[in-house]
Amino acid sequence: MPLTDSILETEIRQQPAVIAQLLEDKTFVGVAAAIRAADPRYVLIAARGTSDNAARYAQYLFGIHLGLPVALAAPSISTLYGKPLNYRDTVVIGISQSGSGPDILQVVSDAAAQGALTLAITNNPDSPLATTAAHHLALGAGPELSVAATKTYTAQLTTLAILTAHLAGNSDMLAQLDGLPALVDAALGSGVDIAARAERYRFMEYCVMLGRGYNYATAFEIALKLKELSYVVAEPYSTADFRHGPKAMIEANFPVVAIVPSGAIYEDTVGLLRELIDRDADLTVISDGTEALDLAAVPVRLPTGVPEWLSPIVTAVPGQFLALMVARAKGRSLDKPRSLTKVTQTR
Amino acid sequence: MPLTDSILETEIRQQPAVIAQLLEDKTFVGVAAAIRAADPRYVLIAARGTSDNAARYAQYLFGIHLGLPVALAAPSISTLYGKPLNYRDTVVIGISQSGSGPDILQVVSDAAAQGALTLAITNNPDSPLATTAAHHLALGAGPELSVAATKTYTAQLTTLAILTAHLAGNSDMLAQLDGLPALVDAALGSGVDIAARAERYRFMEYCVMLGRGYNYATAFEIALKLKELSYVVAEPYSTADFRHGPKAMIEANFPVVAIVPSGAIYEDTVGLLRELIDRDADLTVISDGTEALDLAAVPVRLPTGVPEWLSPIVTAVPGQFLALMVARAKGRSLDKPRSLTKVTQTR
Repeated sequence: MPLTDSILETEIRQQPAVIAQLLEDKTFVGVAAAIRAADPRYVLIAARGTSDNAARYAQYLFGIHLGLPVALAAPSISTLYGKPLNYRDTVVIGISQSGSGPDILQVVSDAAAQGALTLAITNNPDSPLATTAAHHLALGAGPELSVAATKTYTAQLTTLAILTAHLAGNSDMLAQLDGLPALVDAALGSGVDIAARAERYRFMEYCVMLGRGYNYATAFEIALKLKELSYVVAEPYSTADFRHGPKAMIEANFPVVAIVPSGAIYEDTVGLLRELIDRDADLTVISDGTEALDLAAVPVRLPTGVPEWLSPIVTAVPGQFLALMVARAKGRSLDKPRSLTKVTQTR
Repeated sequence: MPLTDSILETEIRQQPAVIAQLLEDKTFVGVAAAIRAADPRYVLIAARGTSDNAARYAQYLFGIHLGLPVALAAPSISTLYGKPLNYRDTVVIGISQSGSGPDILQVVSDAAAQGALTLAITNNPDSPLATTAAHHLALGAGPELSVAATKTYTAQLTTLAILTAHLAGNSDMLAQLDGLPALVDAALGSGVDIAARAERYRFMEYCVMLGRGYNYATAFEIALKLKELSYVVAEPYSTADFRHGPKAMIEANFPVVAIVPSGAIYEDTVGLLRELIDRDADLTVISDGTEALDLAAVPVRLPTGVPEWLSPIVTAVPGQFLALMVARAKGRSLDKPRSLTKVTQTR
């Protein structure tokens, strides 16, 4: 039962089905074999906006499960300064919903011209990016009509997770992936709870978004959705970076949203939240842990039993609802935010 | 003639001397030879806070002048998840003012244990980081007593620039470096102009900081100084990333600070500033270009004749003065911001 009549909410609710269908895709086996054969020293990922947040997830997936370092591209080195990097022993991945960003295409073209292995992850198999890269993984999310990307984001994360499981040759990971559509479906239940509390954010002008490890990506993505949809100045941090300076901003009632799933980051993050509570910050906590939720002015409960490595695909959902509901509470256009277009062409 | 009686301002004014003395350091030759001999496929840099912004500068220096990709470390992969990366054919650089951050040390230790070439850049030759890495470049900035780092930041940038010139074996670059102390000294003149306008920021609660290419780092660093010193929610962006969503936040009087030195990024950035002016944003522009300065409510003029690749070492100075003066206008403690300590220990 939708809570709004927006295309945005419809697309949020399509996510379990999109993810289930990705799990049927057989293309991953061949792509994983090609990457293994290339024996890369590291992976370079070119992406912008929401897709760049998917790249941040890949940094933890590839690092933790494969020992493989990830560099995020600075496309202007090639597009504005005219100096393509040397991609020796590198696998280059371009991630883009549309597959048509000129800067991302340039990085992948440079790499292909040098003979490096290239992979595109897009929602459009006919796009320039998909046809330029040697390999393509299709998101298969169907048309995404809302300007704010939702289902293509979780489809990008799922694609990267499936690819990692194949590269690791880990059947436990593949089995855990099978449980993902049901977990994302359960997370859709958070929409009602968030809608009930959304009016309290009507006059919020700025906030900080905290996540770490796998969910560093989630902090960036929820912050981006809030900026796009509600125009709130939402700034994302890892809890570690936050301690190196930005923490000074926090005073009474300062709004902080924290993503705190169970796992390796839990204890460290709860420790920081206690410090923030001592300074009377206003905490919205997305978690499955009682200790973390008990600290919150607005607790948002996650489904239990989510493996930490897959948690960003689940935590994204309450984040999307939060951005949607705050935007609604502020009277913003849900499907067509001001001054944005669906496809952004940057050089 | 200092404008305040803060240690912070004293340290800002020491920068030309610190930079001049770094240019006399002969250690660079041997370090550059060792890196060349290692023949790395890419460089991984571990850093936090201000030092991480120096790492962002290195991404453009090494990319544009050496074709060498740079990855920024995610230390939690080793510290929280317990999975050190594989550093085959990698040079690993740890950057830290104190040389005592446990997470940065962990990354460098992991790399050294695997036999990768390691380099530390610190202001303390006796620190754990300096003694663990195979090579060390000392900032030689003298004790930095203010909590907000200023002279160690520009010393880090200068160290990376000198190292790049040696790695490139480029005598033109070395000659340009010789002009740097005088340019930074000239930039100190911006302090008076910024002080004259600083009261207008007294009630500013948030702002956006824009830079691209080499000065992507500057946007991050000025934003961090503003957060640390004035507690303003200052969010940094590349102009390209800003177009992919965050632009929606901008409305009448929204404060934007832009770093727009002459060079490859100039035209693209001025184009974005025109869009923001059309939406009545409040622009503070740090530039040597008349076209960019003419768009600003507060123009901050840079010295002319700064090579773009060295410009972040010059543009940092008005940024530091801006943070200092906004903090003073807001009645903040200049040398001891609330809730911060000089050395932050994160895992």
